[in-house]
Amino acid sequence: MFQECLENVRNQTPLVHNITNYVTVNDVANVLLACGGSPIMSDDCEDVEDITTICGGLNINIGTLNQRTIPAMFLAGKKANKEGHPVLLDPVGAGASRLRTQTAQNLLKEIKCTAVRGNISEIKTLAFGSGSTKGVDADIADAVTEETLPQAVAFAKELAKKLDCIIAITGAIDLVADGEVCYVLRNGRPEMGQITGTGCQLSGLMTAYLVANPENELAAAAAAVALMGLAGEIAWSRMQEGDGNATYRNRIIDAICHIDGKLLEEKARWERR
Amino acid sequence: MFQECLENVRNQTPLVHNITNYVTVNDVANVLLACGGSPIMSDDCEDVEDITTICGGLNINIGTLNQRTIPAMFLAGKKANKEGHPVLLDPVGAGASRLRTQTAQNLLKEIKCTAVRGNISEIKTLAFGSGSTKGVDADIADAVTEETLPQAVAFAKELAKKLDCIIAITGAIDLVADGEVCYVLRNGRPEMGQITGTGCQLSGLMTAYLVANPENELAAAAAAVALMGLAGEIAWSRMQEGDGNATYRNRIIDAICHIDGKLLEEKARWERR
Amino acid sequence: MFQECLENVRNQTPLVHNITNYVTVNDVANVLLACGGSPIMSDDCEDVEDITTICGGLNINIGTLNQRTIPAMFLAGKKANKEGHPVLLDPVGAGASRLRTQTAQNLLKEIKCTAVRGNISEIKTLAFGSGSTKGVDADIADAVTEETLPQAVAFAKELAKKLDCIIAITGAIDLVADGEVCYVLRNGRPEMGQITGTGCQLSGLMTAYLVANPENELAAAAAAVALMGLAGEIAWSRMQEGDGNATYRNRIIDAICHIDGKLLEEKARWERR
Repeated sequence: MFQECLENVRNQTPLVHNITNYVTVNDVANVLLACGGSPIMSDDCEDVEDITTICGGLNINIGTLNQRTIPAMFLAGKKANKEGHPVLLDPVGAGASRLRTQTAQNLLKEIKCTAVRGNISEIKTLAFGSGSTKGVDADIADAVTEETLPQAVAFAKELAKKLDCIIAITGAIDLVADGEVCYVLRNGRPEMGQITGTGCQLSGLMTAYLVANPENELAAAAAAVALMGLAGEIAWSRMQEGDGNATYRNRIIDAICHIDGKLLEEKARWERR
Repeated sequence: MFQECLENVRNQTPLVHNITNYVTVNDVANVLLACGGSPIMSDDCEDVEDITTICGGLNINIGTLNQRTIPAMFLAGKKANKEGHPVLLDPVGAGASRLRTQTAQNLLKEIKCTAVRGNISEIKTLAFGSGSTKGVDADIADAVTEETLPQAVAFAKELAKKLDCIIAITGAIDLVADGEVCYVLRNGRPEMGQITGTGCQLSGLMTAYLVANPENELAAAAAAVALMGLAGEIAWSRMQEGDGNATYRNRIIDAICHIDGKLLEEKARWERR
Repeated sequence: MFQECLENVRNQTPLVHNITNYVTVNDVANVLLACGGSPIMSDDCEDVEDITTICGGLNINIGTLNQRTIPAMFLAGKKANKEGHPVLLDPVGAGASRLRTQTAQNLLKEIKCTAVRGNISEIKTLAFGSGSTKGVDADIADAVTEETLPQAVAFAKELAKKLDCIIAITGAIDLVADGEVCYVLRNGRPEMGQITGTGCQLSGLMTAYLVANPENELAAAAAAVALMGLAGEIAWSRMQEGDGNATYRNRIIDAICHIDGKLLEEKARWERR
């Protein structure tokens, strides 16, 4: 299934509209090209509706949100909804500031998202709000480990059901859930956390995968996660003495250029729960 | 001639003011340094006139245009005109949205551009407007190939005459025309399209070349195109197994550091029509 | 002492809030991760106070300042002051435009900066204003060389005393001074100037070093300068035929990942004056 998802992206060259942060935007663009998609960046209210219309999907990332771009996120999201395009939300820093938390929550209220991808802390903020972190979520640990996995899987499914969208929680173990099924994925390297923006890159990738696989959105989202993780492994195996996070960043994007469907199918480590 | 153009850049270290998109801005800055120029980025209305005054030329790229930066493009352009500095326009995404199309067209109306550089689709939008794509341009193909070359050359010259500026259309075959002469250039690699921003980088380069070669603007613009293409070829020859678009990006910029005038003269593949 | 400063950063993972330019922001983020810190970027008035509160320090860089982000710089700076966090100012382009000069000067007036890092031209602008460059500063040369070193050291100390903060002037020879003592540092390579943003990267690094070393701020700032210079040397030694500024940029960040306290202590070339 992951093989088919990857090949659909390579065959269809999905055009992805990104409203994303200026920290990692270049890497997001190059990752989209590397996976076989095509990126457009546009974040102004007067531009986003036209741009999102000609694209296949929309990736909203709030990493450097501001008063000018926040309304553009809503406009683009609503337009993408109207056009029937998949919308992914990456709630960067939800929980770290009121503006980020509220913007992410409002986006979820006003826009039908196909998928939300974040780390466990960001996703918990969306689930429980920043004010209730000692309430309902007291039993959801702050990291997804083998020990906390059963609760985390249940949490992901429950939130996916509640928000009626795919929930992707990425970290040492990655979860990709809808209301019924949760993919648990174990590719990747801890060193990927030493590169800025691997999460943003994955959100771009995942949007392309959703666009090209409308009949299999859950598997497509999981395939994107597996691809990113596998790229991290292959890139790590190519690291030479003295290489560090800058080179690792480049090698991950390079690896995404070369991974084909067969390799992804063979090397992806996942189970469904 | 290309040798002289390149050496003038290296000897004069032209300072280029860039109002450019946040996707590829870092690569534009590093390419300008690599070719022997010096970049400054400034996009705010209160800042651009001072900055453009101390620079030798202005590179306007509308890739992530917005309500704040569009007026700054006009202010900077008018100031550069007043100072007699070359202005290059890169109409990224003209044709993809009304805002982009109109902004590019208005910039061309209000600012005297020395050169416009874009792909065939963007340049056609400037020539015919987004509303008339089935009219006059029906016989201009959407790609410049050996078959469509004669019409494309005629189109480039005609538009150059009409707009009274150099028209650079880049793609598999590159054209650089004024109203009388068209350089047809055949350097480069198709894989350059898998890197975000090679067009933006070329626009930065070309601006530096225009600044340093006021007596030979057409040849300078063509030399910049040849340099970028040759860098793509040299960089490709240095690619190793497993390398992809991230590494290719770096190697292209690296190659620009090392190409000297003699090599450019020798390896540039061009004709005048 | 430099060893201790570096190890404190690695052990404490200081979280640094950056309001920085969009040209070099990705490199700043990756450098912060490489040195053992953690970056957050946020530049909107409604976001910066929350973000700076959860961080350990604030890095303000005016490289692409604008009407929206300038007020955010003041808000964040005041909040950081209130929280007792170190604030670093990187006055990019002070002297090149009135907006830059005035913004830098106003920031210094309204915010208590722990350190200011710039090149000699920017720092002179802060000291003398852009209008008086033929006045008091007539005897401060435009480059710090062995010949001009005594005056430059005196100038740095005097300005540090006047502004009551650490003054870091970087160039061929680097100076890091408070009112009493000036570190003179001689690591680095001239080729670092061919990469966009090595100064911005150093400002990010230095902020992390200030956060993790509150008892030894002057030494910490000097250690950050030595680290950046040493990374430039190590990276240069790894350059291969055909490599240029893009690869050099990556190798410098890579080197920062690997330099440990012992190596920094051993290879840093400095004296106190």
